[in-house]
Amino acid sequence: MTPIERLALLFEKFPGIGPRQAQRFVYHLLTQDGEYVSSLTSLIQDVRSGVRECAMCFRFFAHGKTTNLCSICSNSERDHTLLMIIERDADITPIERSKTYNGLYFVFGGTIPLLDQHHTKKTRGPALRAIIEKRLQEGLKEVILAFSVNPDGENTTRYVEVQLAPFQEKGLLVSILGRGLSTGSELEYADAETIKNALKNRSKQGFLEIPPEE
Amino acid sequence: MTPIERLALLFEKFPGIGPRQAQRFVYHLLTQDGEYVSSLTSLIQDVRSGVRECAMCFRFFAHGKTTNLCSICSNSERDHTLLMIIERDADITPIERSKTYNGLYFVFGGTIPLLDQHHTKKTRGPALRAIIEKRLQEGLKEVILAFSVNPDGENTTRYVEVQLAPFQEKGLLVSILGRGLSTGSELEYADAETIKNALKNRSKQGFLEIPPEE
Amino acid sequence: MTPIERLALLFEKFPGIGPRQAQRFVYHLLTQDGEYVSSLTSLIQDVRSGVRECAMCFRFFAHGKTTNLCSICSNSERDHTLLMIIERDADITPIERSKTYNGLYFVFGGTIPLLDQHHTKKTRGPALRAIIEKRLQEGLKEVILAFSVNPDGENTTRYVEVQLAPFQEKGLLVSILGRGLSTGSELEYADAETIKNALKNRSKQGFLEIPPEE
Amino acid sequence: MTPIERLALLFEKFPGIGPRQAQRFVYHLLTQDGEYVSSLTSLIQDVRSGVRECAMCFRFFAHGKTTNLCSICSNSERDHTLLMIIERDADITPIERSKTYNGLYFVFGGTIPLLDQHHTKKTRGPALRAIIEKRLQEGLKEVILAFSVNPDGENTTRYVEVQLAPFQEKGLLVSILGRGLSTGSELEYADAETIKNALKNRSKQGFLEIPPEE
Repeated sequence: MTPIERLALLFEKFPGIGPRQAQRFVYHLLTQDGEYVSSLTSLIQDVRSGVRECAMCFRFFAHGKTTNLCSICSNSERDHTLLMIIERDADITPIERSKTYNGLYFVFGGTIPLLDQHHTKKTRGPALRAIIEKRLQEGLKEVILAFSVNPDGENTTRYVEVQLAPFQEKGLLVSILGRGLSTGSELEYADAETIKNALKNRSKQGFLEIPPEE
Repeated sequence: MTPIERLALLFEKFPGIGPRQAQRFVYHLLTQDGEYVSSLTSLIQDVRSGVRECAMCFRFFAHGKTTNLCSICSNSERDHTLLMIIERDADITPIERSKTYNGLYFVFGGTIPLLDQHHTKKTRGPALRAIIEKRLQEGLKEVILAFSVNPDGENTTRYVEVQLAPFQEKGLLVSILGRGLSTGSELEYADAETIKNALKNRSKQGFLEIPPEE
Repeated sequence: MTPIERLALLFEKFPGIGPRQAQRFVYHLLTQDGEYVSSLTSLIQDVRSGVRECAMCFRFFAHGKTTNLCSICSNSERDHTLLMIIERDADITPIERSKTYNGLYFVFGGTIPLLDQHHTKKTRGPALRAIIEKRLQEGLKEVILAFSVNPDGENTTRYVEVQLAPFQEKGLLVSILGRGLSTGSELEYADAETIKNALKNRSKQGFLEIPPEE
Repeated sequence: MTPIERLALLFEKFPGIGPRQAQRFVYHLLTQDGEYVSSLTSLIQDVRSGVRECAMCFRFFAHGKTTNLCSICSNSERDHTLLMIIERDADITPIERSKTYNGLYFVFGGTIPLLDQHHTKKTRGPALRAIIEKRLQEGLKEVILAFSVNPDGENTTRYVEVQLAPFQEKGLLVSILGRGLSTGSELEYADAETIKNALKNRSKQGFLEIPPEE
């Protein structure tokens, strides 16, 4: 195999990349200037050596010398009473961008497939309990489960609820993200589960503020 | 123009049908047996003559001789305290199939486009108020607004809320369907509005029933 | 079942139409004015009674009183030495629109599936031979096979070639449409068969007319 | 910006990659073992230093110490009378895989956009003429133009034909890949240009070998 073919094979392991696009990546690198390519390789190495998992939330962050906590976990202005459990690092971006959540996170590391009960190794069930113990001492009041709304996500929600049951008994609130119509939903195409949740979670007040009668 | 071309032009007016599929419909009819085609034309005529709008909810129904109310409006086992306002007839099918709603409906007849404030003629704003007057005397307590979660749907929700403000003052509850993650949602791809709603409407209890401490 | 449901079931038999769109067709008819609906039903009946298969090419045409030939077969200005065998009526539209063919057609009525050798009933193998006998007496010189470039189309090409072998021996030319790159093709995505044909059929002259050397 | 963000920006420059997938690539690298990552960076460097453009066809190849020709150009068993001019390196893979071409290549380096006549710098018009001069002395007889079948590809074909006109006068054959129906084509959906070419290039013999009359 030529270096071109061997490099294409490594690019094929990138998420969502097939053989044709992998080959195109190689040609892309061949036609870029040397500066781009050396930035790329040195950044790949920097990221590997300069990025590590946060000791509290397990998301990747560029660590400095004096801390093993990411910028969110070490930020005293974040709301330490709230902890959202998410599947993966990439879930943080849209939540932060929405500017509607100021609590902390815990990256669970994936979902637990409904059909593969022994798959639990890759996810961070045990670490989660240890972290919650710690966080409780720092004022944690509510854990928000934010897994995908699909069978594996629901299975993971149930699994984590069982893990957190002892803490619930001691007063920890465990909530799940609200279910209902999401942006773009049309009733005609909605599934039964979404309709059920949208009805159950219907909001008792609308957009209008009705001034009180005098 | 040949009859084939003229018929194709009529089929082009069917929702979602372009010239090529319209032509294919004509060839389809040409290759079916006579019985299918005469069933089709006579059913089209039957539907036109034997179907009319329900006097209360405005949905189409096959009317008998003695009633101008559809099977839902005339069903005393439905919950007459609840009225869901939907955009169009077709929205009823998924809701009924979900078996989670036993109240009544009102077909609003569409949405009011955000950018076309004079478009209100096609929808049933005035009829809605008259119907609510009547329904209130029969025990109506809550109106559920069930418009699409998009700009025109939101605009329609606001419009209807203004229409219903006088009734709200008299104690009618006006709610909107719950917003949040719908089936299949993944946090990574969720928009800011959906994340905001999912957080706001998060459910304070999960799947597990924790037995009370003793 | 209500007339609405029964009519939706008939619309579901239209090509490419599922239950949801079938239902939408019914609501479409319910909201159109009476004139549109009666034009539709009377045109459906007209098409059934006023359209028949051409006696020579088997395509559907609006017949008058004095002819059983369509406007193409009865047009003496078309080239009666060429006969193109096509799968279905709808194939004629793009060919006529391309204005590059002035010969006659024969609608074969479909393809013969590679995996279902007994499916030959629906297509017009026997009629084809009878028509070719007739056409030969009127000057036919070439039959062009114009089936889809896929396994069923290729299978049909082979089947028709066997049917036409006796005529080929008597001097009838049998050709197939040229294979190669079609509009939009990019080499990078071309399959081996298309590359093979594009190479075999490469044109020995390009766009430029080179003036002869003196 | 963190190294994670800077690396994501570089991945966004990969062909066909948007911000979200670029971010996912970074997380992918963070979760792979060190061996994979160091193979990746060292192969990227190897490819840059160990791969160069062939002096004759300009495709990238892993050069050894003793040659500046790629394995195709230096292979005496390839047919040196044929030269196919292709847009980019990636076009070679499907042609070689089809095993229907044994001649040589010339990588033109792109197409010349119809709407941007000054864009010719990136492509290899001047180099092409020099190479053809050389190849003619080594027995070159035919140049096959293999550009995409779209406006830019056609424009490039015309441009190259003008470049090659002097050689055509001296007896060089210039051909273009055959046009017609490609694998998967159905007549009903074919455009006028493809139908025209398919008719013009129709093959006068079909699959069957008719034994000669005696």
